[in-house]
Amino acid sequence: AHIVTLPGDGVGPEVTAAAVAVLDAVAAHFDHDFRFEEHPIGGCAIDASGDPLPPASLAACKAADAVLLGAVGGPRWSDPNARVRPEQGLLALRAALGVYANLRPLQVHPALAALSPLKNEKLKHVDVLFVRELTGGAYFGAKTRTSDSASDECRYTVAEVERVVRRAFELARGRRRHVTSVDKANVLETSRLWRSTVQRIAADYPDVKVEHQLVDSMAMLLLTQPSRYDVVVTENLFGDILTDEAAALAGSLGLLPSASLGDGRSGLYEPIHGSAPDIAGQGVANPVGAILSAALLLRHSLSLEREALAVEAAVDRVLSHGPHSRDIGGNAGTAQVRDAVLAALE
Amino acid sequence: AHIVTLPGDGVGPEVTAAAVAVLDAVAAHFDHDFRFEEHPIGGCAIDASGDPLPPASLAACKAADAVLLGAVGGPRWSDPNARVRPEQGLLALRAALGVYANLRPLQVHPALAALSPLKNEKLKHVDVLFVRELTGGAYFGAKTRTSDSASDECRYTVAEVERVVRRAFELARGRRRHVTSVDKANVLETSRLWRSTVQRIAADYPDVKVEHQLVDSMAMLLLTQPSRYDVVVTENLFGDILTDEAAALAGSLGLLPSASLGDGRSGLYEPIHGSAPDIAGQGVANPVGAILSAALLLRHSLSLEREALAVEAAVDRVLSHGPHSRDIGGNAGTAQVRDAVLAALE
Ligand SMILES: CC(C)[C@H](C(=O)O)[C@@H](O)C(=O)O
Ligand SMILES: CC(C)[C@H](C(=O)O)[C@@H](O)C(=O)O
Repeated sequence: AHIVTLPGDGVGPEVTAAAVAVLDAVAAHFDHDFRFEEHPIGGCAIDASGDPLPPASLAACKAADAVLLGAVGGPRWSDPNARVRPEQGLLALRAALGVYANLRPLQVHPALAALSPLKNEKLKHVDVLFVRELTGGAYFGAKTRTSDSASDECRYTVAEVERVVRRAFELARGRRRHVTSVDKANVLETSRLWRSTVQRIAADYPDVKVEHQLVDSMAMLLLTQPSRYDVVVTENLFGDILTDEAAALAGSLGLLPSASLGDGRSGLYEPIHGSAPDIAGQGVANPVGAILSAALLLRHSLSLEREALAVEAAVDRVLSHGPHSRDIGGNAGTAQVRDAVLAALE
Repeated sequence: AHIVTLPGDGVGPEVTAAAVAVLDAVAAHFDHDFRFEEHPIGGCAIDASGDPLPPASLAACKAADAVLLGAVGGPRWSDPNARVRPEQGLLALRAALGVYANLRPLQVHPALAALSPLKNEKLKHVDVLFVRELTGGAYFGAKTRTSDSASDECRYTVAEVERVVRRAFELARGRRRHVTSVDKANVLETSRLWRSTVQRIAADYPDVKVEHQLVDSMAMLLLTQPSRYDVVVTENLFGDILTDEAAALAGSLGLLPSASLGDGRSGLYEPIHGSAPDIAGQGVANPVGAILSAALLLRHSLSLEREALAVEAAVDRVLSHGPHSRDIGGNAGTAQVRDAVLAALE
């Protein structure tokens, strides 16, 4: 398999290297052939070429079986009024790859419950799969700016809603058969389109229970009743906010992976944490989010379920017994955590 | 003073009546003359006249010194594709009154910490004042809908941002002098306008510390470091989501008040909970959010600070010693809680 890596900025290169080491070990252990090709994206690409997504990076991603990304952005490029910004590279990549369904699984490891801001009893049985629409909405709508006003358009077609909602229902069939669709249908026209599309599609999945929540209520319910949810599907911006909120429950952003999928087998895999410039280059970033993203890559793009489970089990053992990185209360560095996962893989 | 009440739907009439009883007691105790005039809004107004904000209701609100609202909406009127919806009445009222700054204070009463989903140590010293922009953004932008697509436009002018941000800085001067502005400046053009406007205005308040957070990070930080925030200012939709998330920390939505202010002295006061159709008409709704909204009315529209503090102290005593309504783990009804607040006022 041909995997493109986009380490990006900040801690991106450190955590991506750890994930690649784990994929190399999987290849050796299970006798696969993984070829890696590294390309720039984000701030480092702006520095090198002025372009946050150079044509060669994009072409390589399009030709790959899967793409593993670190993180983009950082204070050096964070002037909101700059003409070119690192995030544009990531957004352009998501759009160009057509990865409209962003999967963000959330579980709270029992050994880490003490790190969560939520009370322990709330965390029992929390097992949510967020499916965030990733290539539409206000992220990609028309924008205007004059000296005294600005606008962003949020636009969705029925087809855009339908494909991501179907994906959510399909995923629910492999889980607890419960889909919660989140919108703001009492105010937004796009949310009314979203809700009526979900209602229509739900008829094709009579075995799946469907529920609608308003985004404001959902922001509350994720805290008061997190174990009630199975698959949560929502539009791009609501998904951005709700998944970060939910990530806080896990104790650290550094733990959580994501998979962005389109209609083909290829996909884009990235930890949900950002570039964490405050700790970049120090070798202390938690590589678990990136390593679990590699596990999702094995599962969704390479159909290597057994291998994905092996990586997840290895991470589970390290989270149970340590070593733990700083963000989860330990003092292990990135390499030490990586080595522990590699050892647990044997 | 001339106060218009808009009890609205669901539990709205029950909690509004309790708040009016408290205002009546304040009038008697402190020798004021409060005249009340009740008008329909929301679902009940649709039922009566087909209009969620009848012209007579609006005219009365415009002429009043302050408006006290219960809640609008409910399953009877909740078809998202209905032509007329209860929420339209509330949104039209906010716009017509020009109440662009929605103040939502959040404190966690020590006696209720056990109800919060957050660990107790996180709740110490939580004292946040959210200032949500209330008359702009996607709530009021152009909408389109065809059979296969929909759009919502989020638009802000510099003037709209400036007035609510200045209000936030002014309020911070009466508090801990710290403003956190929340946006999504790495993606949205309106957020970049928002951020540069905040940066410009901050120069007029050198005594106030200003911080910018992205909305996704903020959704997380509200859980991991809630006591770090003083005044949080943000646009309409982000404020809707973040204030409900924050409200979960208090243990019950039923406890929290809000004040919506414009440039005049008049204002719109409402508890942040909704119409709670599941418990409507049973006399069990928590009136505390409505009563504390009445306290904000005394403070902001009638400049009766001493009276506002007296109501807040009375509520504080009831929350400390009971009786407590069901949502906060007791079994007192609305009337019992109201009577306890009245008794504590003496
Ligand atoms: C970096 C940023 C553009 C991105 C987003 O908002 O989608 C990030 O927050 C995420 O959630 O992947
Ligand atoms: C009822 C609804 C339109 C309203 C809003 O979204 O503003 C409510 O959620 C609120 O926060 O006051």
